[in-house]
Parts: sequence; C-alpha cells; structure tokens
Amino acid sequence: MHKNRHRYCVIMCGGIGSRFWPYSRARLPKQFIDFLGTGRTLLQMSFERISTVVPKENILVVTNRRYADLVREQLPEITENQILLEPARRNTAPCIAWAAWHIAARDPEASLIVSPSDHVITRENDFESSVCTGFEFVESHDALLTLGIEPTHPETGYGYIQVDDAIDGGICKVKTFTEKPDIELAKVFVRSGEFFWNSGIFLWSVKAIREAIRNHVPDIAAVFDSAPEGTFADHAAETEFIDRAFPGCVSISIDYAVMERASNVYVETVNFGWNDLGTWSALYDMSPKNRDSNVTQNCSVLTYNSTGNIFAIRGEKLIVVDGLKDYIVADADGVLLICPKEREQEIKRMVTDAKVKFGDKYE
Amino acid sequence: MHKNRHRYCVIMCGGIGSRFWPYSRARLPKQFIDFLGTGRTLLQMSFERISTVVPKENILVVTNRRYADLVREQLPEITENQILLEPARRNTAPCIAWAAWHIAARDPEASLIVSPSDHVITRENDFESSVCTGFEFVESHDALLTLGIEPTHPETGYGYIQVDDAIDGGICKVKTFTEKPDIELAKVFVRSGEFFWNSGIFLWSVKAIREAIRNHVPDIAAVFDSAPEGTFADHAAETEFIDRAFPGCVSISIDYAVMERASNVYVETVNFGWNDLGTWSALYDMSPKNRDSNVTQNCSVLTYNSTGNIFAIRGEKLIVVDGLKDYIVADADGVLLICPKEREQEIKRMVTDAKVKFGDKYE
Repeated sequence: MHKNRHRYCVIMCGGIGSRFWPYSRARLPKQFIDFLGTGRTLLQMSFERISTVVPKENILVVTNRRYADLVREQLPEITENQILLEPARRNTAPCIAWAAWHIAARDPEASLIVSPSDHVITRENDFESSVCTGFEFVESHDALLTLGIEPTHPETGYGYIQVDDAIDGGICKVKTFTEKPDIELAKVFVRSGEFFWNSGIFLWSVKAIREAIRNHVPDIAAVFDSAPEGTFADHAAETEFIDRAFPGCVSISIDYAVMERASNVYVETVNFGWNDLGTWSALYDMSPKNRDSNVTQNCSVLTYNSTGNIFAIRGEKLIVVDGLKDYIVADADGVLLICPKEREQEIKRMVTDAKVKFGDKYE
Repeated sequence: MHKNRHRYCVIMCGGIGSRFWPYSRARLPKQFIDFLGTGRTLLQMSFERISTVVPKENILVVTNRRYADLVREQLPEITENQILLEPARRNTAPCIAWAAWHIAARDPEASLIVSPSDHVITRENDFESSVCTGFEFVESHDALLTLGIEPTHPETGYGYIQVDDAIDGGICKVKTFTEKPDIELAKVFVRSGEFFWNSGIFLWSVKAIREAIRNHVPDIAAVFDSAPEGTFADHAAETEFIDRAFPGCVSISIDYAVMERASNVYVETVNFGWNDLGTWSALYDMSPKNRDSNVTQNCSVLTYNSTGNIFAIRGEKLIVVDGLKDYIVADADGVLLICPKEREQEIKRMVTDAKVKFGDKYE
C-alpha cells in the first residue's frame, strides 16, 4: 500500500496501567508486556498495526523517561528522534502538543493519528481502511477527528460520543461528549444509535491541532511557542528545552482541553474489533474461555467449582483453585492479587494502600 | 534433669504431609519446614523437646531415604547410626519394629518413646513430666502405653481412645480405639469424659514391643528376626540387610497391627497443648489471628472484606485479597492453591490430579 510521507503517528505509552496491577507495574506497565500471549507486546502490536498506513520513520512514541529503554528494546527499528521522553506526567494535552510542534518542525503539511498503545484491535484490515478514511478527511477539512466505536453492549466503563447527522461517509459532526454513564443511561445510549464509544484515537492535521491548542489551551501553546527557533528540529536542543519547559505545562487531557471545546470536532464511526483493555473484566470478556468459563493468561490451571474467573500469572506456575466465582487472580513480581471482578475499580486504591503500608517496590 | 541412659526416642519423619500441599511437598515435607515461623523446623523442635528427657545419643530418626540429607542438615548433632533410612514406605509398624530391633541390639533393657515429628506441643514442661511418668510406667509394667490427649472440642479429624477406670495416676487401661467420629458422635465422646484423642505417641520397653510384634504381626517380626546375629549393631550390615529385607514387610500401621489387638494396652491421659497439625484448619485454629481473623504464615497481607482465611506463602510476597471468607491460600515452589477450608479434605485428590495432568514436579 502506498504510504503518504506526510502522514505521522503518535503512539502514547506513558501510562502505568494500574488497573491491571499487579500484572501491570509502574516499572513494567501493560503496554510493554505480551499481554495477550501473542509473542508481541501491546506496544509492538500498535507499532506494527499503524506501520501499514504510516511510514515507520514517521511513527513517534511518547512515553515517560523511565520507559526509554523499554521502548528502545521493543522497537529497535526507530531512531532516538522518534522517541519523545516526557520528564514528567502531564496527561495527554501537553504530550500531544509537544508531538505536534515536533512534527511541524519537520513537515508543516503533516497530518497525524494519535493513539494509545494499550488497546487491542482485532480486525486490522478494517482498522487500516478506517484510518485511511480519517486521514483523507482531516487532509481535506479543517477538522479534529476522533474515532467512535460502534457499541456492542451498554458498557459503563467508557465515555460516549453523541453524533449529529453524517456529513461524509461514516463521518459526523460531534454533538456531545459524555462521561461514563450508569447502566440505564448506557442502555438508552446504545438503543438510540446516536452514541459511540470514545476510543481515544484522534486524527488531525498538524496545522489544525496547533491552532486548536493555541485557541483553547493557550498556556500550553505558549510553552512550546517559547522555544527558540529550530529547537524541535535539533534533538539535543529539544531535549534540553523539554526538560526545562515541559514540567511547567498544566496537566490536562486532550479531550477536556480541546475536543470538548472546539467547534470543528468530528467523529468517524468505526468497527474494527476494538477493546480498550481498560480493566480485567474487559480482558476477561474479550478472551477465549475454557469450558468452565475461566480465562487463563500464561498459566496452567486446575479448577474445581470455579467459573467466570481470570487467572493471570507471570512466570511458570500451577494454579489450583476451588470454589471461586468471578474473581481476578493475578500474580506477578512478588504480588498476588485475589479480587472479585466486580470490585476491580478498587484495585487502584489497593495499590495505594500497598504502597503506603509496604513501600514503593509493590507499585 | 537426670536422663536415664536406658531411655530412647524414635522420631518418625518419613511422611509427605500432602494435606498441606503445596506448602508441604514430596521433596520438602512439612516436618522439614519452619512451619510456625519460629526459626526451627518441626523436626528440630521435636528433637529439642525430647532431648530434655532422653540422651541425645539415644534419639533415633526414622525417615525415607530421600530425606537423609535433610535430616543430616537439620540435626547435625546426630550420628549416622541414629538415622534409620527406610528404602520404601511401609507405614508405621515395620518402621517401629526396625527401631525396636535396632535398639535391642544396643540395650535389651531399653525403654522408648515413639513420636511423629510433625505435631506441635506448646507446653513443653507438661510434656516433659508426662513423658517421664509414661517412661516410669512402662519400665515397671509389661505395658504398651499411648498418650491420650484431653479433648478441648468435638474434633472429627482425630481417632479417639476410650478409657477404663484409672489404674495409676492418670494412666488407664484402654477400652476401645475408635475411628474418626462424625460431629454428633464426637460431641457425645467429649461430653462423656471417657474419650481422648489418639496422639500417635507411644511408650514401651523394647522387650514389650518386640513381644507384641512377635505375637500380633509375626510376619514383620520374622523379617527382623531373620537378620544374622549382630546385624543391627553394625551400620553397614544393617543398611545392607534393610535394603534387602525391609521392602518385604507388609505395610500396616502400629495402631492396627498391635495397639488394637494387644491386651496390655494403656493410655496416659495428658494435656500439654498438643496439635497434630494435620490440616490447614488445625493450623488455622492454633495460630494467632489478626483483627480480621485471618492467619498469615510468612507473608505480608492486605485484606479487604476477608475473614477466617489462612495465608501461607513460601518466599517474599505481598498478598492482596478482597472478598475471601474461610479460604486457604497457599503458594510455594511453583504452585498456588486457593481452596475453601471446608474443602481441605479434597487437597489430596487435587495433588493427584495435578500429578496426572502436569507431572511429578508439582507433587
């Protein structure tokens, strides 16, 4: 396939994945793990998936500085210039702004896709054609485009996007972004046909996103505009500048900073087997089950009177379980978690409790 | 305290402890583990306890050949002559017979106490005086004496001994031995005041036990009587003989082979904080609990909505648990077991299943 050299990708992979603790850990978050047992990490899968559409040398990875070596190991084909190392966590808006300024210094005509690194997409061909459609749209319109996933069930763990009438094949104006709904509202959303899951995947021209950032979060734009001429085209100068200036950015998500404020926001409704792998339950739901409806990740399991569980173990281990229903059993790197799936929203608090009580090594 | 040089002890430590799997394993059974976190293994505690009554050089350890090095490491003060290595598992009668013949070759006037290595005794002074009383009795009577524990609750996991009227301070003739009762019968037993728990600790003179074995299991006596003169006083000759002859012994318990058949059987009723550590529940019951009634062995635990559990982990590990009530969570040497305490009698079957499905390494 022809790859347009003006097309770029920004893969964001700085998160900790604490909802998958203890399997995902601060020092080895889930995007750097072979989470699905495919032999490739989630980051590697994201890189390969997008590299069918975007030239490899145009794929940037933005991550926290502590994960630099993990990125270099897992993506040996990319250069230092393609790895943007954040000196501090500032949510997605400053990260996306940096990437936009970085790309603009190389190619003012560029368009880009911004994507998390830790979701799963099962139908790669559909993904590829959706992304091409999106690129064509943002290359021909002054538009900020987000990909909206056709909902398959009334999920309460996702944000939803309400669409207006279609203006182009599968592309609509956005009417509203909504927070995670309760189950009743989620059912209404799904029935209506007007609501789509917010995937966190965006496409835009570098010109449009820089303009939107300047309009809606001028403080962040001012940080990057303060860089001396040529900074973003010179690796050493850029690193020096980012170390100094980036921590001064306000911490805010791109959704809140830009997407919910701008008027030129569009959604492309898509359907390519997306799962955000946001929770153990989401992983359970998408995974193949054995005849007792248990899911096992990388381990041998012997179960009795046990159904609906997910077992995720790092390292060689036999799990023998009796009388567990709908639990998460995760064991990695010195921590064993046993927790009902319905209590998984408490895992973040458990991580904090463990840190307070037993120290950073369990984070 | 004066230690009578005619007094011997036989510590039996050849069992696998499979009811404590995966914490107790075929290659490292529970008697060789610091099971209570005291810094001493159960075997070492048994040895020290009896060495206040019996000269150390008169303490014999009988075990399976595969555990020879474990015994040597844990009890460096004993000589090769004090370690009897069984070439095959034949239950307690052949093991006790061998020990009796071995001791008789050294001291025909000897008396001995036979004890498992894997129980717990919390009041050592009471133990010591009970054992001395027992020795004095078997040294002055033609008697096979067993220690009967005053029951503290209607336990269904133990055998019971019914006593006749006392004939000597705390020593009675045995009326019957009973199998493990159901809970209703156990309650009747405890209320009656006539029933005591069968501890598996025996005292007798070497003369009395040899005579009883010759009378009640002559096939076993014949095996040891077939040894050439001097065999049991010569380490090399004894080893050679045992390797050849011991596997030919019938596999039978001393209770069934002798105690339930002989007429000169007595019980000394005792009370010294005995627990046979036979099951996870027994260990749970005797262990100190935290404020949520959980018991932890060698691990850091963070619990939510969890009570009545026992957590036993080999190695450094943090356990985080939500929503478990009355479970066993045991993790050691490549196996994690999660099982309701009330299903613990199924653990032996699980070990078998694991062996069939995944091989010997998990035994």
